[in-house]
Amino acid sequence: MKITLGPENCLFPMPTVLVGANVNGKPNYMAVAWGGIMDFDFISVAIGRTRYTYGGIKENKTFSVNIPSFEMLKETDYCGIVSGKSVDKAALFENFYGKLGTAPMIQECPVNMECKLIHIVEFLPDHDVFIGEIVETYSDEKCLTNGVVDFARVQPILFVGTDASYWKLGERWGGIGSVGKELKTR
Amino acid sequence: MKITLGPENCLFPMPTVLVGANVNGKPNYMAVAWGGIMDFDFISVAIGRTRYTYGGIKENKTFSVNIPSFEMLKETDYCGIVSGKSVDKAALFENFYGKLGTAPMIQECPVNMECKLIHIVEFLPDHDVFIGEIVETYSDEKCLTNGVVDFARVQPILFVGTDASYWKLGERWGGIGSVGKELKTR
Repeated sequence: MKITLGPENCLFPMPTVLVGANVNGKPNYMAVAWGGIMDFDFISVAIGRTRYTYGGIKENKTFSVNIPSFEMLKETDYCGIVSGKSVDKAALFENFYGKLGTAPMIQECPVNMECKLIHIVEFLPDHDVFIGEIVETYSDEKCLTNGVVDFARVQPILFVGTDASYWKLGERWGGIGSVGKELKTR
Repeated sequence: MKITLGPENCLFPMPTVLVGANVNGKPNYMAVAWGGIMDFDFISVAIGRTRYTYGGIKENKTFSVNIPSFEMLKETDYCGIVSGKSVDKAALFENFYGKLGTAPMIQECPVNMECKLIHIVEFLPDHDVFIGEIVETYSDEKCLTNGVVDFARVQPILFVGTDASYWKLGERWGGIGSVGKELKTR
């Protein structure tokens, strides 16, 4: 039986990421689960207009998306519950910069995407959505299998919004087309 | 050691969903992993301009996002590898409509979000991004715990794009603030 819940966002689980931006010339990171894929090399992050990170992205027109591993859950959660207005969150990490020069990234995160801001979706009630073009992706060598990022090695932190909870990634099942083709013979 | 991969989208895992739309007056579903969260009640789906579903969303200005359970992997995978141009994919499911009247939904999916199209991001190379406002969410009663959608019961299908693979959801760990607060005492 179906129950109606009113408008309830259930597009979960989402990867929990740390969005990096320079704010007032210093690196800052914010935990974000409201991301999205826009196209092959384009991603989005929804950032509340009152957030400290918000101004930094607008100012520099660059940001980074860092994928923490599950063993970084404590630091990741912390970056979601305290503001860079009052705390230097970058002090928790080894920081590095790439091609763009103003998008700080976290060495300890197994995967980092360095992004150029190309568009802002500005009409939503509480958040602006920053769309970035990925200009470079960095991966720990140990998280690659045959040159490809292997999420069994990354061990990402998943987020489910309906009860605001963190989850682990489960078992890899198979590739696209592995099971659906059976229905093609119908 | 960090390896540069060029621009490589690593915002994974993402939930695999079935996007529903009426096309030429008939229900159709397409497997999509390129979704996103825009705001509390707003989500996005990136759809290639040549896809059969594309015209249906533009025409009706409505769509649905259906969350299949892992036991629907075969049907979900199938909806990603065949086109509604040549196959009636809706025949696989029991279909229903909600408030908007033109956004078909799948009874067998434990969670369904009925969406009104409010904006299209149209400047990306290969995909247009449809931003929808969720007007109603439907859940199977058996997937609710204390009135909230419980993803341990939903058993969603996760997608990782780096090797185009399906994954299961792992273990629930804890809520926001559960571990990060330890760092607050520093």
